[in-house]
Amino acid sequence: MEKNWDVIIVGSGAAGMSAAIYTTRKRLKTLIISTDVGGQMNLTNHVENYPGVDTSISGPDLMSHFRKQAEKFGAKGVSARVDSIKPEGKEFKVATTAGDEFVARTIILCFGKSPRELGIPGEKEYMGKGVSSCVTCDGPLFSGKETAVIGGGNSALEGAIDLSHVAKKVYLIHRRDEFRGDEITVEKLKKSENVELVMDTVPVEVKGEKFVNGLVVQNVKTNENKELKVDGVFVEIGYEVKTDFLKGLVKTNKANEIVVNDKNETSHPGIFAAGDNTVVPYKQAVISAGEGAKAALESYAYIQKLEGKPVVKVDWK
Amino acid sequence: MEKNWDVIIVGSGAAGMSAAIYTTRKRLKTLIISTDVGGQMNLTNHVENYPGVDTSISGPDLMSHFRKQAEKFGAKGVSARVDSIKPEGKEFKVATTAGDEFVARTIILCFGKSPRELGIPGEKEYMGKGVSSCVTCDGPLFSGKETAVIGGGNSALEGAIDLSHVAKKVYLIHRRDEFRGDEITVEKLKKSENVELVMDTVPVEVKGEKFVNGLVVQNVKTNENKELKVDGVFVEIGYEVKTDFLKGLVKTNKANEIVVNDKNETSHPGIFAAGDNTVVPYKQAVISAGEGAKAALESYAYIQKLEGKPVVKVDWK
Repeated sequence: MEKNWDVIIVGSGAAGMSAAIYTTRKRLKTLIISTDVGGQMNLTNHVENYPGVDTSISGPDLMSHFRKQAEKFGAKGVSARVDSIKPEGKEFKVATTAGDEFVARTIILCFGKSPRELGIPGEKEYMGKGVSSCVTCDGPLFSGKETAVIGGGNSALEGAIDLSHVAKKVYLIHRRDEFRGDEITVEKLKKSENVELVMDTVPVEVKGEKFVNGLVVQNVKTNENKELKVDGVFVEIGYEVKTDFLKGLVKTNKANEIVVNDKNETSHPGIFAAGDNTVVPYKQAVISAGEGAKAALESYAYIQKLEGKPVVKVDWK
Repeated sequence: MEKNWDVIIVGSGAAGMSAAIYTTRKRLKTLIISTDVGGQMNLTNHVENYPGVDTSISGPDLMSHFRKQAEKFGAKGVSARVDSIKPEGKEFKVATTAGDEFVARTIILCFGKSPRELGIPGEKEYMGKGVSSCVTCDGPLFSGKETAVIGGGNSALEGAIDLSHVAKKVYLIHRRDEFRGDEITVEKLKKSENVELVMDTVPVEVKGEKFVNGLVVQNVKTNENKELKVDGVFVEIGYEVKTDFLKGLVKTNKANEIVVNDKNETSHPGIFAAGDNTVVPYKQAVISAGEGAKAALESYAYIQKLEGKPVVKVDWK
């Protein structure tokens, strides 16, 4: 892979791929560095709300369209994890954990979020042995089995619905007495006969031998514990931003999200950010795609300015 | 049409339709009031940069997918022009120029921009008689004819390319000595044999009898005038926001764009805005769609708050 680029995009979800479509159409030499292709979209089976795609499509399929476009316009990709980004003069040195080094004039951070963990006994121990953070990925393994989904947002709700088509039984465990997912999804869920809602309840411990065989839960109002006999535990309690490799480089908020202004600029000139790893609320594919496009056009304006060219922002189309 | 709604969306381009997809999925009763369906996207023949749609698609086709989704989830539309929006208690009364009145709890303004005019003699007189603001709409009428396109952005450049496949000759008239459109489009343009670039030049007067038969232009460096023998003049010099019906209701900037914060809130509580009629830079379909989704989710949060329900902003999906 070549060493020098105009733009390095870290991450290849909706934000990163959209950014790549826009930078390459501006004829900027663009490298995408990511550990996967598709980002969080890979974790969903049915996308119905991405405007312009009016049939239900899987997240990975939708992202494959993003990818084809980015590649058609000339974006290159490398499968790697970024270890560090270091400013040097007007450029940035990007090192991967595999020991490769790339140089770019501007950086767009779009590496999204990572699944949050419960932090209860047994969770780490049985990860991949019955504990999973992805119904879409691992649900099919639990055909005819008893399972639990933990969480109250869209991911948990849709996870429970998907799982109910495969599993014998799905306990949906939520710490509050109401859901925060879309109404339309809540309605679908209530029609699922083999889903049992376990409200006001938190998980306490994952039990098992070689594989998971139970989940101890606690009712937060009565403090009463009980054990559910389940073979699978799906943790769908949201995500966190892992910004350790950026420490001291760009400003983040308390939730570890990268602070950007309305031009998608971070606190470091030449470094832009878009999508789930930023402070922008509502983590939706179309919102991330829009933010990625903005970050790309701003990175183009930044490079134009570096080169002393006039920057005309208005771009009617 | 029913009178009372949760949300009235004014405009049905990328921002408005995306907003409708999101409000209806939150089970909000949603009415779209607009003079057309598709907005500015109707004026483009080839969309290649809308992420997720990896084949070249016409603007109207892409927007028909947006529309199908919004309708599938329950959005209703009415073809009308909004005359006034008046707050009354915690609601808004929306009157159309046709004399109808609707009431909503929240408003999302997504009516975009309107084509800017040159303001030169003959322009108004020959509008529809050789003068047009839309190559996509009217280009096919100029098969085998000599034409001029005025402007230097993507719309003008792509208009000139499209027209070159139909017309005998296309003069592309631009007041500067370089283009502000995408590099990729500039390259395509330079390969078009029947396109003549007329740089550093402004139009002065549209000539004609029953129909256009000429365009007088002036070189801004030499001040020299000359007349081009053309049958068609396409004005592609950008757009303006027409906010007269909102005077005093929401804050606008000098360019007449509606001022919004990062939550797509205008200066008036309960009124949100998204897309080309706002201050958000870069008027791209995917950016407008993202902004529309944000405005919709914020309007949902606003209504939840009105009802005293807890507002949980995080919506992982």
